[in-house]
Amino acid sequence: MALFAVILAGGSGTRFWPASRRLHPKQLLAIAPGSDRSLIGATVDRVSSLVPPERVLVATGAHLVEATRRALPGLPEASFLGEPVARNTAPCIGWATLIAHRRDPNAIVMVLPSDHHIGDEPAFRAALQRAVASAEQGPITTVGLVPTRAETGFGYLESGEDLGSGVWRVARFVEKPDRPRAEEYVRSGRFFWNSGMFFFRARVMLDAIAQHLPELYQGLLAIERAAAQGPAAEAETTARVFEATRSVSIDYGVMERAALLHLVPASFGWSDLGSWQSAWELGSRDERGNCLDDECLAIESSGNLVRSLRTDRASRVIALVGVGDLCVVDTDDALLVIPRERAQDVRLVVEALKQRGATEKL
Amino acid sequence: MALFAVILAGGSGTRFWPASRRLHPKQLLAIAPGSDRSLIGATVDRVSSLVPPERVLVATGAHLVEATRRALPGLPEASFLGEPVARNTAPCIGWATLIAHRRDPNAIVMVLPSDHHIGDEPAFRAALQRAVASAEQGPITTVGLVPTRAETGFGYLESGEDLGSGVWRVARFVEKPDRPRAEEYVRSGRFFWNSGMFFFRARVMLDAIAQHLPELYQGLLAIERAAAQGPAAEAETTARVFEATRSVSIDYGVMERAALLHLVPASFGWSDLGSWQSAWELGSRDERGNCLDDECLAIESSGNLVRSLRTDRASRVIALVGVGDLCVVDTDDALLVIPRERAQDVRLVVEALKQRGATEKL
Repeated sequence: MALFAVILAGGSGTRFWPASRRLHPKQLLAIAPGSDRSLIGATVDRVSSLVPPERVLVATGAHLVEATRRALPGLPEASFLGEPVARNTAPCIGWATLIAHRRDPNAIVMVLPSDHHIGDEPAFRAALQRAVASAEQGPITTVGLVPTRAETGFGYLESGEDLGSGVWRVARFVEKPDRPRAEEYVRSGRFFWNSGMFFFRARVMLDAIAQHLPELYQGLLAIERAAAQGPAAEAETTARVFEATRSVSIDYGVMERAALLHLVPASFGWSDLGSWQSAWELGSRDERGNCLDDECLAIESSGNLVRSLRTDRASRVIALVGVGDLCVVDTDDALLVIPRERAQDVRLVVEALKQRGATEKL
Repeated sequence: MALFAVILAGGSGTRFWPASRRLHPKQLLAIAPGSDRSLIGATVDRVSSLVPPERVLVATGAHLVEATRRALPGLPEASFLGEPVARNTAPCIGWATLIAHRRDPNAIVMVLPSDHHIGDEPAFRAALQRAVASAEQGPITTVGLVPTRAETGFGYLESGEDLGSGVWRVARFVEKPDRPRAEEYVRSGRFFWNSGMFFFRARVMLDAIAQHLPELYQGLLAIERAAAQGPAAEAETTARVFEATRSVSIDYGVMERAALLHLVPASFGWSDLGSWQSAWELGSRDERGNCLDDECLAIESSGNLVRSLRTDRASRVIALVGVGDLCVVDTDDALLVIPRERAQDVRLVVEALKQRGATEKL
């Protein structure tokens, strides 16, 4: 068995503005608590005991390949797949699976997001191994996260038949539910958060794409034929195929239609690190609930997150007096002040900057 | 009549931290609304039609002479008096009066704070002229500000006999009152804020010092004797006299004891600009009550003051989302976030930085 890891690193990550930018998205940031590794670096580290560097594939936007390569100096040149244009996850996973299959027709692929936080790494690896073992048997397998709250921002998976060894059949995919349904899901014990982690034999996924997304499959075949003529032809065809293909997620395009889908429920201190609010939740906080960098001085203040990210931060002090539950993020060319509970609304700033034409701030 | 202006510029001004610093105090800042002039520059400009540059004396700390000179390039070298050590206002005014008297024994002196804001300059100059006319007749004269609120942070002057021509006798000085008394004062119409502006014949002030602060007077005589021996002897004696003299305010040491004190009530849009809160009150605000610099983006935010004072501010954006009534002050080496109503508590930061030994931030 040749296990490949496909790391999805195409996110634009406006939710961590001003730290995240179009050319420096969330997965390249070191925002995980107690770590100075980028999120994508930590992702690759976490699977390094399962997958050697030459079997790690990183799928990102063509404009992000250079920055992503710099964040992952341990990976070879051939690990980096630059999508010519963004077309959501199905074309990207199809393409990466094609590459893995080309390198080893018996490849087993695990698809992992690049920008999540994992608190319990041994539990994470144990779940991965269960999921890989399930995928080896044929079925596309996904990890379902045991929900810790009635979250309305995530999709859910409903479990069906218990297949033993910690593996269940997937009964159905559920879109983001409303609050009452989310509460019902959590109570039921049968619903899990969709982690976006998928495990499959490369051949099985290619066949599923052939069945459910036949146009994409034709594109992948064209890329494969062009590859036989050399790298230039392959690059040209890849660009043409991505340009022509429609945007579709792997969930909608393949998973929800797959006849046989397995689920490995797991719990490993997962967070999608969706906003500055989650950075505060996961960070280490002082006795007044402030999550501060060294250069901060918080007086009669509580519940704040302060991120001092300027290159000259060592010669700078950020002083808070009498404020509560704010996020303050200071970078070389921007400063953000927003209540923690409105952290998602940082998108309003990004939109306003777009309207102003302040592209250098995006 | 030779009219001299003595500008008091000894303030340390921690209340505008992080903009104000030990070596860059409030009077050197351009914090007045709609002006890019320093407060002291605006002060000198305001009296330039009444007093020529060579009759302007600026009394500041020895350590501030260089920075003060740079802020006032229109004044000659001889205008700057560097106090060897701070001893409150009486020694400083006594010394400056001595210098004015040396240059012209018939000198009339007006003493003006360097760090206040004047909204109505014609009214201000008219009040000055009334006060100078009163001082010419002999009595030490002060400007009393018509109170616009029951302020408990200022001293008051009670008016006595009406002497005509907009001049009254001072009945008494009153220390900062409590709230009920302040309200009574405002209602009475007989009480005025002590502006810290004084007008007198130099000879009259020197005689008053001789009477009420005889030790200081002896010191001034010693300086005058030393001056006859040359600048080095004068500087040496001045240092010795300041070192030996006790700290005392002109109010307590002279004014409250003077037999004959006149008062010119006036109203000219005065503010002591005592904190970031006053900067907000005086500043121009948008329809949501935000007082913002150009580089700011305020989304669903109201009542905020943002001061973008970094040297690289043009390439920086300060974004507020969903916050209200905050002061955000951004400088090259510090950032402050504090509610407007707690603006006075910026002193807590200054104290904490002192305790940390972060002298470069003070």
